[in-house]
Order: sequence, then structure tokens, then C-alpha cells
Amino acid sequence: MTMPLINTEAPELEPAMWMNSANPLSLKALRGHVIAIHAFQMLCPGCVSHGIPQALKMNALFAEHGLVTLGLHTVFEHHDVITPEALKVFLHEYKIPFPVAVDRASRSGPIPITMQNYGLQGTPSLVLIDRNGLIRLNHFGRLDDMLVGKFIGQIASEEQPNTIPNQLSKNKDSQVADKAACDLHKCEINN
Amino acid sequence: MTMPLINTEAPELEPAMWMNSANPLSLKALRGHVIAIHAFQMLCPGCVSHGIPQALKMNALFAEHGLVTLGLHTVFEHHDVITPEALKVFLHEYKIPFPVAVDRASRSGPIPITMQNYGLQGTPSLVLIDRNGLIRLNHFGRLDDMLVGKFIGQIASEEQPNTIPNQLSKNKDSQVADKAACDLHKCEINN
Amino acid sequence: MTMPLINTEAPELEPAMWMNSANPLSLKALRGHVIAIHAFQMLCPGCVSHGIPQALKMNALFAEHGLVTLGLHTVFEHHDVITPEALKVFLHEYKIPFPVAVDRASRSGPIPITMQNYGLQGTPSLVLIDRNGLIRLNHFGRLDDMLVGKFIGQIASEEQPNTIPNQLSKNKDSQVADKAACDLHKCEINN
Amino acid sequence: MTMPLINTEAPELEPAMWMNSANPLSLKALRGHVIAIHAFQMLCPGCVSHGIPQALKMNALFAEHGLVTLGLHTVFEHHDVITPEALKVFLHEYKIPFPVAVDRASRSGPIPITMQNYGLQGTPSLVLIDRNGLIRLNHFGRLDDMLVGKFIGQIASEEQPNTIPNQLSKNKDSQVADKAACDLHKCEINN
Repeated sequence: MTMPLINTEAPELEPAMWMNSANPLSLKALRGHVIAIHAFQMLCPGCVSHGIPQALKMNALFAEHGLVTLGLHTVFEHHDVITPEALKVFLHEYKIPFPVAVDRASRSGPIPITMQNYGLQGTPSLVLIDRNGLIRLNHFGRLDDMLVGKFIGQIASEEQPNTIPNQLSKNKDSQVADKAACDLHKCEINN
Repeated sequence: MTMPLINTEAPELEPAMWMNSANPLSLKALRGHVIAIHAFQMLCPGCVSHGIPQALKMNALFAEHGLVTLGLHTVFEHHDVITPEALKVFLHEYKIPFPVAVDRASRSGPIPITMQNYGLQGTPSLVLIDRNGLIRLNHFGRLDDMLVGKFIGQIASEEQPNTIPNQLSKNKDSQVADKAACDLHKCEINN
Repeated sequence: MTMPLINTEAPELEPAMWMNSANPLSLKALRGHVIAIHAFQMLCPGCVSHGIPQALKMNALFAEHGLVTLGLHTVFEHHDVITPEALKVFLHEYKIPFPVAVDRASRSGPIPITMQNYGLQGTPSLVLIDRNGLIRLNHFGRLDDMLVGKFIGQIASEEQPNTIPNQLSKNKDSQVADKAACDLHKCEINN
Repeated sequence: MTMPLINTEAPELEPAMWMNSANPLSLKALRGHVIAIHAFQMLCPGCVSHGIPQALKMNALFAEHGLVTLGLHTVFEHHDVITPEALKVFLHEYKIPFPVAVDRASRSGPIPITMQNYGLQGTPSLVLIDRNGLIRLNHFGRLDDMLVGKFIGQIASEEQPNTIPNQLSKNKDSQVADKAACDLHKCEINN
């Protein structure tokens, strides 16, 4: 069983394509911002009733304060019917204004690449990345708005150091190993 | 502009296929039951947040008292991406237990056949048919649960006469004409 | 343990006073109307969050169709602090427009008179009385809006006979005995 | 018109009495904690439907992380009917576990003392005080849970300096003057 990647440098998203964005986005280029990634599937009821509205609210409340909200469409079942064209309609109908990365299918199984890299355990999942590029929250399932607000407030208050600590650059090169080493204690949600 | 068909005999549904039902269903064969038809599209936000939960509640509360709840998937935009296969996944994920008719595409325009016949003005729409096969409610948009309950209680209380009045059998043969003759006053929601 | 009075003639309310009504009201004088009585206490959380909003909605939706909505303030605990003056402020702040009967305290115990007569089991309780003066629903606790609507639609559809059946006039003179005779089966909510 | 006191040292509460607390509480003694004060009236609908549930949620989520939640019952109308005894029943029925200060009536007008000192503009109001005793939020009316969470996360992340800056000790002695000097810009909600 994979564990949620946490307290380590956020790996780059590896989408097959981007929607709502003229160009591909890079987490590295967004370094310095607090980033919220909402992983969802368009036919996941919990995503539609809870995850998407929460992402829209975060974007509406905090975009002007520097929060970058990104969607990550991580289809891990029913690949054949949930096409990018259907997703495009979904984004239009639900008036989703922020960029959405369409995760890249894996050749070895149903879990797409970025979902694997982050150790996401399903949808909806919320990932918060701090100004230094560290994953600070990696939560699967429903999370109360007040808690989400608290995490954002906390992370947004932190200073950005000038340099990324050594330990983090190291993680970057050993991402899979780190994830494999992730034990129960380290991977718990950091609240 | 089409007007909602009301106070006239409910035309048979003309779906391309049925889901959640081994055999095609006929309104005529269901005569004697109060029937609720929920017209929806799987990528319509109002349907997912309001119409579908209301249909599920109606079915849960009133099926044992004889109410027949049917879905009607009336795609009138984005036909190409909202496939029957995608709908099948949707019904599974949203745990929709009642039969769903997949409306038949029209050759002459985007509005599918049954949707045209009933004069539906969009999705979600709720149609209530009484024990005699008459359309008693044909409502487009959100309708409060208490009002829906009141209509069902009212219609379910009515006796079923032994014979369908002449006027109704006549309507059956002049369905399009009747609909065309429907004026603003007659087509208002009958509450 | 008292049982909810049901399927028998509704005894007159016996309030100490009325609010939002220039004159005392009589159920007998309202005969011919469907009547909804919402029993509540102003410091009962379930009443404030659910019962009162439901009563306001019923009144807003159905008053024009002949439904009479009445409040019944049945204080059965903390009599000393929940004064009529406090209730007056409550009705004002919550913008309650319908008449409210302030139930009369009993000399023999904490349960006020009308609450005893109806066999109410707590607050909020909803009592529905049909056009003939019969109690058709006597429900303690939360009831879904759709179910409330269904009961009202059902009862409102019924004809009012010219005369009250013998059995009912009899009940009228033996109200306490009838209540005492109320067994488990007869007193169940009639849905 | 009074302005909300903000960005200055929080004046001590001046209640007539405390409930849910064996001893009177002092903000000074709580210095080092983030403190949330919910000002409410028990017959204010917005307090009961929104403010109180939000205060209960804050307390449930963040008490273990050091947040101190306090109620402040600021009756500024209907003094005669909203007695401390009635409030005691209210706190019991709504299962409010945190200490509640019952604001002291003023001799010169309807606004009680602490409400005046903080420049509260009505109920519900939410005041957030940081670890140094500074008022950081003073908001009248409904505030989204996500925003409340963000303010708490932000304030809780801040270090507590060893000494209170001079400027603040000065404020302490000139509290009324400071409030009077409060202009439109400085008193805006600090979000």
C-alpha cells in the first residue's frame, strides 16, 4: 500500500495535458507561492459535492493573497469513458477557473503517474505545498473548511528561506526511495 | 419556444436504451401508479447537487407506497462526450437504483425525442404523472422538497377512475397538436 | 408513558394566552381548514434549527392554499426563566408571523395542559389536523420536509364530509378516556 | 458611531459574572494563548444559527492546539427578559462547554461595558487576540469558516516576543483615547 508523500519536496506534476492554462505549469516555477492541489475525478460524488466547491472557495478567497490553486484530474477507474473531452465539458459546466492537470496514465496499472508519485490514496485529495516546495498536507477524503483555512493560514505565514535545505535537494533525487521508506508515523496528516 | 406538456396524457418515453432495467418500461403498463420522471444530464451541476438527491429521496421515501421513480437522461448539449458508457459509470458511482431511460437523439436538432415530446425546458426537470396517466406537474429547475412532497401526497390521494375519459384518448392521437396549442396559462405549474 | 393522540378529534388548545393574534383562536371555528400545530420551546435547539424553519416554510408555501399554521409553546422545563415576555422577544427576533398559543401550566406536574391532552412526547412536535378536526399526524422529533409536504398534500386533497361521523362525536365527549385507551398500534405515526 | 477596536491591546473583559468557569478569567493571565471571543445574544438568530456553531467548532478543533475560546454575552436589547438564569439554561441546552462572560450593563445606555470597550457593532461578533494580547480581528456578522480558520492558523503561527513592545504598553494606559482615535483605515478588518 502506498503512503501519502509528506514533508518532502513536491515532485513535479506529470500530466498528459493541461486545461485552463495556455502553457504547462511547473511547481518549480511557482516556488515562493503556497500551492493547493485538488486531486479529483469528475464522476466521484465526494469530489463534486465537497472537493470541487472547497477548491473554488479557496481560490475565490485566497488567490489575491498569493495562493495558487491547481486541479489534478487523477482517473484511476473507468479510464475509457472519462475522456479529456468530457473533462473539458465538466470544467465548463462547473465554472472551474483554475488550471487543471490531466494526470498521465501509467503503463503498469490503473493509477496514473502523478497520483503514484504523491502517494494519493483516492479522490478527493488535497495537497498543500509551502513556499519552499515542501508537501505539508496530503489528505485523502473530506476535510472541514475551517481546518483547510487553518493550514493555509499557517503555511502562508511562514517565511521563505533563501535556500532550499540540503536534505530537500537530496530528496529530489531519491523520490521513489523516500516514498517507499515512508512509515506510518511520518506520513500521517500533519495537523 | 416549446411549452411544458401538462394536464394531458403522458406520451410514452422514447429512449434509445434503458439502464437499471432488464426490459424496456412502458408508462401504459405502469398505469395505476403515480410516476415521477427526473430528467437530468450527468454533467449538469443543478442535477447533481439538487435533482438527483431529490429523486433518490423520493424513491427512498415513497417507493414502498407505490411511487415509481424513473430517470430520463436528456442530453441536449455535448452529445459526443456524454456517452451511455459514461452514464453507466455515473449511475454506479451515484448509487442510483431506479431505471433510467437514455433519451433518443433527434435527427433534426440537439433536443432528444422524449424531451421534445414533453416540452421540457432544460435540466433538471421533474414530471409527475397521475394514476390515470395524466401529466400533472412538469417543472423545470429547482423545486423545494416540501412542495414536491405536497404534489405527490395530493396526486397519490386521488382515486383512479375505471376508464380514461374520452378527451384523454383523443389527446393521445394529437399529441403534437396539443402541445402546440398549449398556451401560457394552461402550461403553468399546477400548484 | 403518554401516547400521542391520533386519529381522534383534536381537543381544543388550552393556552394561558395567545400571541400574534388579537383574539383567542378555536380549532372548532377553524374546522374546514387543514391545521398544522408546531409545538416548540424557545430554548430547544432542535426547535430553533429545524422545527421553526419548517413551520415558517409551511406557512409561506401553503397559507394561501388554506393551511392554518399555529405555534404551541409548550414549556415543560425551566418554566421560571422562559417567560411570556421572553417568548415575545423570540417571536419578534425570529420573525414568526403566525399565531402562537402559550400552553397553560399544570398544577400537578411540569407538563402543560395542552401538551398533556395531545400526548406530545417532547419538542419539536408536529400535529396535523384534517378538515374534519381529526388528528392525522402527531410526530415528535425531526421529520423530513418532503414527508411533511406529502402529509399536507394528502390531507388537503380530502373532501370534508357534511357531517362528522358518529364515532368522532363520541370521541369528543370521551377525550381523556380515548387517550388512555390509545394503544401502541393506533398511536403510531400514520405514514 | 463606535469603531471596532483593532491592532491594539485587548482590554480586559468586564463582565458582571462568568458562567462555565469556577473563577473569573483574565486576558492577561491567558497571555501567550490565541484567544477567540464570540460575542452573542441568546435570542439573536444569526448567533444561534451561525456564531455559536462556529464557536463550538473552533473549540472542538483547536482547543488542544492551545486556542482559548470564550463567549461574551452582550445583551444590548431586551435586558429585562434575557436574564442570567435564562442564559444558564441556554448554555446547558446548547451544550456550550467554554467559559462565557456575561457583560456588565452600562448605566448610561443600552450597550454593555465590554461591548463598548471593544467597539463591537452588534452580534454575532468574533474577536481574535494574539499571543501578545493584541486584537487582530474584530468582525461583526457572518464570517466563512475557511476565513476564520485562516486567521487562526496565521495568528497561531506567530512567535510570542519576550516583551510587549513599548507602544503597546502605552496603549494600555490610553485605551479610550486610542479607540477614539481609531479611524476608518485602521479599524478595517485585518484580512
